[in-house]
Amino acid sequence: MKIKVVTRILEANDRIADENRKRFKEAGVSVVNLMGAPGAGKTTLLERTIQALKPRLRIGVIEGDIVGSDDAERISALDVPVVQINTGGACHLDANMISEVLDDLPLRELDLLIIENVGNLVCPAEFKVGEDAKMMVLSVAEGHDKPLKYPLMFRESSALVINKIDLLPYMNTDINKVRNDSLALNPKLKIFEVSCAKGTGIDQWAQWLSALRS
Amino acid sequence: MKIKVVTRILEANDRIADENRKRFKEAGVSVVNLMGAPGAGKTTLLERTIQALKPRLRIGVIEGDIVGSDDAERISALDVPVVQINTGGACHLDANMISEVLDDLPLRELDLLIIENVGNLVCPAEFKVGEDAKMMVLSVAEGHDKPLKYPLMFRESSALVINKIDLLPYMNTDINKVRNDSLALNPKLKIFEVSCAKGTGIDQWAQWLSALRS
Repeated sequence: MKIKVVTRILEANDRIADENRKRFKEAGVSVVNLMGAPGAGKTTLLERTIQALKPRLRIGVIEGDIVGSDDAERISALDVPVVQINTGGACHLDANMISEVLDDLPLRELDLLIIENVGNLVCPAEFKVGEDAKMMVLSVAEGHDKPLKYPLMFRESSALVINKIDLLPYMNTDINKVRNDSLALNPKLKIFEVSCAKGTGIDQWAQWLSALRS
Repeated sequence: MKIKVVTRILEANDRIADENRKRFKEAGVSVVNLMGAPGAGKTTLLERTIQALKPRLRIGVIEGDIVGSDDAERISALDVPVVQINTGGACHLDANMISEVLDDLPLRELDLLIIENVGNLVCPAEFKVGEDAKMMVLSVAEGHDKPLKYPLMFRESSALVINKIDLLPYMNTDINKVRNDSLALNPKLKIFEVSCAKGTGIDQWAQWLSALRS
């Protein structure tokens, strides 16, 4: 009974995600769904990515948070169009939430729309929003056991950005285990090692992201 | 309609949580629901806590993960009774999952049962499992914006363990902002600063936890 309800919710979500996808295609905008645990560094990666790609691509952002608009204010300071969604308790964005804010973005004037999901390694991976690709951020401070404990997000993502690698000397995280376990779950996963704090690896990641567009 | 379903699910959960609570009371065991984001250090805190309190208290553990039994194996190595729950996708433990494993624990021979929830800063705070108190772990690597972005868990918790303080010199996290924003949400919140890696602050935390029992 409970499972039936969940299935119905996911089916309804997929239908709306398809409508969003059609709309994105018509507008000619590529869409990335950016996911990761709280504090993995999604917003900071977004800031660095925008700084790197702004000369080449017209970028827009949708920020998803339970409450507040801190992240949207950070992105807005970079002078790109941004909309904040507050889920009011829900632990993930769904297709309907995205659909409701699309009129607030100049879709036809964008090359790339990045949707930053609620900080959560679990549910965001279950809900399509109409994206071309899902990508995830993992901080090395989260430890090397995450791929095996939260496999769905690693399976669903096209790219994994391993962030905060400047902290590696101060902890026991085995980054090769992260790589190997992630690739075992998803052999096509593209992996980037990045430090948003120091700027390491951002160019390579941004280069790859912009190449997706063509 | 969707909200109605969610309300019904939460009501059913509360009923089972009350039954669990009655059972814990009859057995004379205190119960803590330990929550936090993925990689905050919940299992490592649990290991240190057991090492500190084992001479004084008979401790049992329920481990909640989506898949796998890594955490239960780590706890089992400390020679305390432990049961692993795999939620199979669900991003939180609920009262029914707990109810179903209670026969597998020697409740009457325990003083303290610690339930480690699924790594998630959102949903675990919504589902009572019959606990006497909720407690949460936050890693300094998650940044200082978490109380304002994920307020419910900070409101619901009796104690906040700020973990990985040995990393503070290498990052911009403002721990006073974490303290102030947390206390603004929940003035009764007891806050501990801890490094599980270095052992800092564990005695104080363990002392407080064991005093709850009396």
